[in-house]
Amino acid sequence: MSARTYLNGIEGAWIPTHDRGLMYGDGLFETVLFVDGVAPLWPRHRTRLEAGVARLGFALPPIDALLAVAQQASSGLARAAVRITVTRGVGERGYAPPVPAMPNWIVAASSAPVVAPDWCARGIRVRCCSLRLAAQPLLAGLKHLNRLEQVLARAEWNDAEIAEGLLGDSAGRVIGATAANLFAVRGGRLLTPALDECGVAGVCRAEVLARREVAVGSLTWNELMHADEVFLTSSLRGILPVRGIDAQTFAPGAVTRGLQQEWRALGLMEPADG
Amino acid sequence: MSARTYLNGIEGAWIPTHDRGLMYGDGLFETVLFVDGVAPLWPRHRTRLEAGVARLGFALPPIDALLAVAQQASSGLARAAVRITVTRGVGERGYAPPVPAMPNWIVAASSAPVVAPDWCARGIRVRCCSLRLAAQPLLAGLKHLNRLEQVLARAEWNDAEIAEGLLGDSAGRVIGATAANLFAVRGGRLLTPALDECGVAGVCRAEVLARREVAVGSLTWNELMHADEVFLTSSLRGILPVRGIDAQTFAPGAVTRGLQQEWRALGLMEPADG
Repeated sequence: MSARTYLNGIEGAWIPTHDRGLMYGDGLFETVLFVDGVAPLWPRHRTRLEAGVARLGFALPPIDALLAVAQQASSGLARAAVRITVTRGVGERGYAPPVPAMPNWIVAASSAPVVAPDWCARGIRVRCCSLRLAAQPLLAGLKHLNRLEQVLARAEWNDAEIAEGLLGDSAGRVIGATAANLFAVRGGRLLTPALDECGVAGVCRAEVLARREVAVGSLTWNELMHADEVFLTSSLRGILPVRGIDAQTFAPGAVTRGLQQEWRALGLMEPADG
Repeated sequence: MSARTYLNGIEGAWIPTHDRGLMYGDGLFETVLFVDGVAPLWPRHRTRLEAGVARLGFALPPIDALLAVAQQASSGLARAAVRITVTRGVGERGYAPPVPAMPNWIVAASSAPVVAPDWCARGIRVRCCSLRLAAQPLLAGLKHLNRLEQVLARAEWNDAEIAEGLLGDSAGRVIGATAANLFAVRGGRLLTPALDECGVAGVCRAEVLARREVAVGSLTWNELMHADEVFLTSSLRGILPVRGIDAQTFAPGAVTRGLQQEWRALGLMEPADG
């Protein structure tokens, strides 16, 4: 699957079975888009990784070496998806974290997924998942390695025409998609769900928040279904208009199109006729 | 840390970095006590593993081969702790589970932890963790690889005199400990928390449920603090009386002592004077 994989900077695709990343999901990951060897959103990935290890309570691996290895791994790929995994490393038996930890870091590069031009132009069809995300404020927002909820949600359908599944919480709020964040436009306002209790705070979402005035808060399913525009954001796929949520249809609007244009200018999406 | 480790039955302590167990915590584990090459609670571990892979939606690895490898790994150790990890294996990029999956299974044996005689005799001191377990009915009860909550809870203290941390949910109910289940005796009734929304349903807990009449339901912190007896159960440590929860003290009673005696007869705990 991966073109090139490195463990702690050394080429190799194997990790000790007693790494806490495998034993407990004790770590974090980033999925970074490299375009001709450059990652336009790298500062945001780096910021999220720094915040993540701080919240989990271990030291960041050497971040400059990590970036250099990621660039090296992506070389020769016009558009590379580089997964960076950082774990707390190996410890004694049991949940107690080793102090100090000796984190392990993995860099794995492969060709970025090709997004169908039709998905960018007309939009994607998505469904509502029956799984409800659990509320855990101590982990909310982090892109950590405990992703069984996303795995179970993604296993709810296998229709290739359905690009994504939307996820809500047990209080009836929309949170996002299995591997993307969600935005809606209602009455001229751009909205995105707050991620204080569950969900992953994506870097592409952060980039939108930096470029637009966005109301970050609660979004009910009913509010979503009556939105004027709906789109998903993803570091690998950019800005994707939603044209259908189950039987409800939507049309891409000016806000979605404006952001897509900026993402293309940044190299984060391929040209419209590409 | 581990004396002997096997991947899919072959000696070796490394796993591919793109195994879904590491990428997403997409798998399960068991920690099995072997006494002179025999695991008295093996049927319960096997039953839980079968139920776990069924709920996660992938096939069980060859279970007889797995037991044989676990026995082999434990050989030469009078009391061995054998961790069995089963993952969904390697897949394509993304959360969608591969169909069919090719599970990977890891067996790692080491000497079982020695339980201080004083812990068995007088009991252990525990604390109440501030972390609240999130409610996810689809994963509740499973010993899956998404264990960041336990890691964060266990990181709340580093006083070696405190043997365990108790965990509750956001509704004010007691659920268990970071790596053990909890029982309380109140007014002659034996109680243990229901694990329909969070928590891990331990095999030692299952053995107690099979041997005693137990009320499985809701237990508040206040009810716990006024219990006549409190004890923890663990496959590696057996039946451990609790003599203190923060400042509240307890004395081991007849129910706890009776179970300890049975556990010793089964070989699941070392003799009282051992």
